[in-house]
Amino acid sequence: MSEGYMRGKVYLVGAGPGDPGLISVKGLKAIKIADCIIYDFLANAGLLHSAKKSAEKICVGKNDGLHLLEQKSINRLLYEKAKREKIVVRLKGGDPFVFSRGIEEALYLKKQKVPFEVIPGITSALAAPGSFGIPATKKGEISSVAILTGRRSDGKEIDAPACDTLVYLMGVVNIENIVSRILQSGRKKDTPCAFIEKGTLPQERIIKGNLGDIAWKARRYHVRPPAVFIVGEALKYGKRVYGHKIKNG
Amino acid sequence: MSEGYMRGKVYLVGAGPGDPGLISVKGLKAIKIADCIIYDFLANAGLLHSAKKSAEKICVGKNDGLHLLEQKSINRLLYEKAKREKIVVRLKGGDPFVFSRGIEEALYLKKQKVPFEVIPGITSALAAPGSFGIPATKKGEISSVAILTGRRSDGKEIDAPACDTLVYLMGVVNIENIVSRILQSGRKKDTPCAFIEKGTLPQERIIKGNLGDIAWKARRYHVRPPAVFIVGEALKYGKRVYGHKIKNG
Repeated sequence: MSEGYMRGKVYLVGAGPGDPGLISVKGLKAIKIADCIIYDFLANAGLLHSAKKSAEKICVGKNDGLHLLEQKSINRLLYEKAKREKIVVRLKGGDPFVFSRGIEEALYLKKQKVPFEVIPGITSALAAPGSFGIPATKKGEISSVAILTGRRSDGKEIDAPACDTLVYLMGVVNIENIVSRILQSGRKKDTPCAFIEKGTLPQERIIKGNLGDIAWKARRYHVRPPAVFIVGEALKYGKRVYGHKIKNG
Repeated sequence: MSEGYMRGKVYLVGAGPGDPGLISVKGLKAIKIADCIIYDFLANAGLLHSAKKSAEKICVGKNDGLHLLEQKSINRLLYEKAKREKIVVRLKGGDPFVFSRGIEEALYLKKQKVPFEVIPGITSALAAPGSFGIPATKKGEISSVAILTGRRSDGKEIDAPACDTLVYLMGVVNIENIVSRILQSGRKKDTPCAFIEKGTLPQERIIKGNLGDIAWKARRYHVRPPAVFIVGEALKYGKRVYGHKIKNG
């Protein structure tokens, strides 16, 4: 990746899972020198305090179900700001290349011959469970983790692959369907699972259950997007590591 | 997670995929104030330049196949340094909870009543492909990614789940076996795949091929650990995004 910051270039920056301290050093530097920051709700707005006072800050939405701007318009905006010789940061929640449409933006910029660089971020799929002491893997016991979408746009069935740990993003609205697919794949109703809301932020919350009751619990405890849905034996470690943080389930 | 840095506490810090600019802001801060840093080969040694001059720096090995200290001795070392009222950083490549034995260290410290905090990192499983423009997912097309071990310690078969993208860590030595398992699972010989060596570092390298020839190519081009092995249609985007970086395959 080309180093050094330059005018007319777009930085596709992963803001990380929520805690502003979890952005990368490089990502924060890009924010500090940016002339224009185009961000969405999934990126911690606190990060904008690190930007120059003169920097233009544009919110393009993208909370679960709420888009202020269509992807096409976001692409166009990136292009226009870069063409005006600005240092442009496109700040995205998590990692730009993990369910964040960073690849669409990269391909668009490439086509338009606008220089760009992708600065990865920590995905909430791994860090939100981690914040409750739940590892993705454990040597000799939990040897694979899958990161999946809980809301497919292509009309196909939700995936439920044979991995030890499953982590679904965008799974709140569609939870009944996700659970039903996982049960069909052969897992038992008492398989532990949990929703983690706002993982790594002070207001983070875990709703623990099993495949038989999690859909009900998600309604009962009013789980709201963005939240991560995790399934598997890795959950047992959460209580052992950070027992004090886990109240229900 | 408890905030603020304190003596007698251990910080399990993910150093990220290689590029020292990809550690988290919080992780770098922990390194800066640490009295003692216990690191392995997978963490970028350049990060140690940010430590206090007076900080003790202990390398405990853990390159592929080369351990200077057993896990038990590493655990014991963390305990001893914390008991001497030091601010201890355990610096690990990637993320402490993704194939890094961070959970073993966390459980040990919990048992010994040593305060600790896990600071996540960007896993090389996602960032190494990303550095070559290869996304983990793409809306409407690539809807799942699995991160797996290429070297199981429990004697079981290598996993080859039905995810669109597969990323194996520790897959160099065992590549023939991994490929054979993936082919058994129903994928075709011409499925694109690649090894990425030292992803995100200046000396990063990609060896592209397909399931039919990648084992041969890995030998031919002398792929060395640590390297990430990625399989799936996501690979086609690499060339489109960063064509100039991809020379072979």
